[in-house]
Amino acid sequence: MFGFKLLAADGLARRGELRTPHGMVQTPAFMPVGTRGAVKAVTQRDLLDLDAEIILGNTYHLYLKPGDDLIARAGGLHSFIGWDRPLLTDSGGYQVFSLASMRRITEAGAEFRSHLDGSLHLLTPEKATDIQAQLGADVAMVLDECIASTAAADGARDAMLRSVRWARRARQRLVTLREEGAPEVTMTNRGQAQFGIIQGGIYPELRTESVQATVDIGFEAYAIGGLSVGEPADVMYAVVQHTAPLLPADRPRYLMGTGMPEDLIECVARGIDMFDCVLPTRNARNGQLLTSRGPLVIKNARYAEDQAPPDPDCGCYTCRHFSRAYLRHLYIVGEMTAATLNSIHNIYFYLDTMKRIREAIVFGTFERLRQEFHQTFSRRPQQ
Amino acid sequence: MFGFKLLAADGLARRGELRTPHGMVQTPAFMPVGTRGAVKAVTQRDLLDLDAEIILGNTYHLYLKPGDDLIARAGGLHSFIGWDRPLLTDSGGYQVFSLASMRRITEAGAEFRSHLDGSLHLLTPEKATDIQAQLGADVAMVLDECIASTAAADGARDAMLRSVRWARRARQRLVTLREEGAPEVTMTNRGQAQFGIIQGGIYPELRTESVQATVDIGFEAYAIGGLSVGEPADVMYAVVQHTAPLLPADRPRYLMGTGMPEDLIECVARGIDMFDCVLPTRNARNGQLLTSRGPLVIKNARYAEDQAPPDPDCGCYTCRHFSRAYLRHLYIVGEMTAATLNSIHNIYFYLDTMKRIREAIVFGTFERLRQEFHQTFSRRPQQ
Repeated sequence: MFGFKLLAADGLARRGELRTPHGMVQTPAFMPVGTRGAVKAVTQRDLLDLDAEIILGNTYHLYLKPGDDLIARAGGLHSFIGWDRPLLTDSGGYQVFSLASMRRITEAGAEFRSHLDGSLHLLTPEKATDIQAQLGADVAMVLDECIASTAAADGARDAMLRSVRWARRARQRLVTLREEGAPEVTMTNRGQAQFGIIQGGIYPELRTESVQATVDIGFEAYAIGGLSVGEPADVMYAVVQHTAPLLPADRPRYLMGTGMPEDLIECVARGIDMFDCVLPTRNARNGQLLTSRGPLVIKNARYAEDQAPPDPDCGCYTCRHFSRAYLRHLYIVGEMTAATLNSIHNIYFYLDTMKRIREAIVFGTFERLRQEFHQTFSRRPQQ
Repeated sequence: MFGFKLLAADGLARRGELRTPHGMVQTPAFMPVGTRGAVKAVTQRDLLDLDAEIILGNTYHLYLKPGDDLIARAGGLHSFIGWDRPLLTDSGGYQVFSLASMRRITEAGAEFRSHLDGSLHLLTPEKATDIQAQLGADVAMVLDECIASTAAADGARDAMLRSVRWARRARQRLVTLREEGAPEVTMTNRGQAQFGIIQGGIYPELRTESVQATVDIGFEAYAIGGLSVGEPADVMYAVVQHTAPLLPADRPRYLMGTGMPEDLIECVARGIDMFDCVLPTRNARNGQLLTSRGPLVIKNARYAEDQAPPDPDCGCYTCRHFSRAYLRHLYIVGEMTAATLNSIHNIYFYLDTMKRIREAIVFGTFERLRQEFHQTFSRRPQQ
């Protein structure tokens, strides 16, 4: 069911096609994040209109509420949320690291208290695999141990080696589920793929070691984890540049949790095929629109009477119908519609950027697109 | 530009067509409320998909933020909010009564402090007319004095008589604006109609007096105000039953701020053509879905695994794609999408009810629809 086909390359940038039980995904792809089974502030038909080909769900959140058992009884996450295109669930490792309280990592797994009600949970590699088998996304991720980007090499190595051991257990568990099943687990998607995750912090030699050990286990594809957690962009780019080429060329490469629009371009340039990030939707809710000229902070008084669309070069629903002045008004008075219209724009901008990247790779003009993008897009808000 | 054509009648129930500078409205009509220039939690394209033919804006809110001058410079409310179908603005009288603090009513107008920043304002009949001329909705309302439904006859009569005097001033001001203009007022919709408002509390003789005096002034049409403010449904129905037939038969009759679905049917049965109410959208945000079988409180644990749509008889986007279980999950975890999907359903239910009413009037089956509706719809939540 799962497959990946390379269609073109331009330098290290790759144009591909991911096949999943719920359809195809054109790569390089950006995946909007639907943490709790909904991409915040937009509906599934908004996502179809935006032509989002794949979205994410979060194992940690969905396990706590409404529970993977309930979702399995509803036929799996696709059925539960009314989304029949591809879905990916992350493993929950990052959320245990960033959200849960009283976190304790042992060889068995990650013990933590729910950020919702303080209840105690043990997330093991096997448990994370079981939960995701019940959710039934088209791609599941192995449980990994996440550490701060400032971790010293010793700590980073320990976490990386533990992540490898956990990855081996997660794979073994999925093989068992596939071959023998387990009475307590309802597999709602027999074609589910499982991705391994490369760790190793900012240390090239640890990344190399992680790649070798993880690829040795054997997954449908591989992700690079532990980046975009506070380290400078240059450091992140360097780790990606080192790591991506080590991964099997015939499998998609997924950079987890990245990032700003220019990060997507820079990491495609280094061989990445898949991205996810809460940034476009979170920034939208905070009133920051990402445009071809850089971020635009819609609450600024200078937009109070600005009749131009947020991004004159954008073809999204928001830019085709509404002015900066109206969006500012909605944001200032606190209308929920502000979050919706801003999210539609930001997701469109990300997906459209990926589309332009894909076209440029096919036409062999990726370098030109990259240079042009850097000339027009600035991280700093527009003055 | 403004006109009303009666197409059919069934008993006192009327089927008509309202012509405005921004298109036609089929009556009896329900108008979703977009207080601050947005119907809460839905986008304009959701409203088009729902086939909402007319929506409301609120003079009080829009005057305070972003200001009618700003909206006039943007070309008027239609242009500002990106809605080119009919619009109606209420006069702000009810919001001064219900929201503002330190309200003081004098013959000049309503002095109040903004609920936003405490700033002092004087809303006169002329000012309310000017503001609405700048907003440029297709229908403007005169400023009226709103009182509690429990007001004694003396107080109700004073407020009614003052409302009549204010109505005369409001009409005079609009005539002046139309004929001579005013340097401080930009009329953004030359075809704007102005509706008078009948007051008089729960006292039939006061309602009769109000109708005579208000019709004597002469407006494009008339609204019944001061109801659905806490009085029992029977009392409200009785006032409507008394008042509606006194109004000119060749003009639409608008019952302001009503109500529950069965109220719409009961008031159509008494000759009402237009309705507005925040109830469908407000209840949606509070997790109450209005269905053909009565209200459904989505957070109830009994819906946790209910794979049925909210209303199996409903054709709305929400009911066609999502289960009660998913909507409950979204509501429980606090996703904004819950408000959106619930609002889409509730608005659809209201608009669909009006459509069924219109069809029944044409086919002479309105009484049967009315009986059937009361048999299936209950005010009490489903057990």
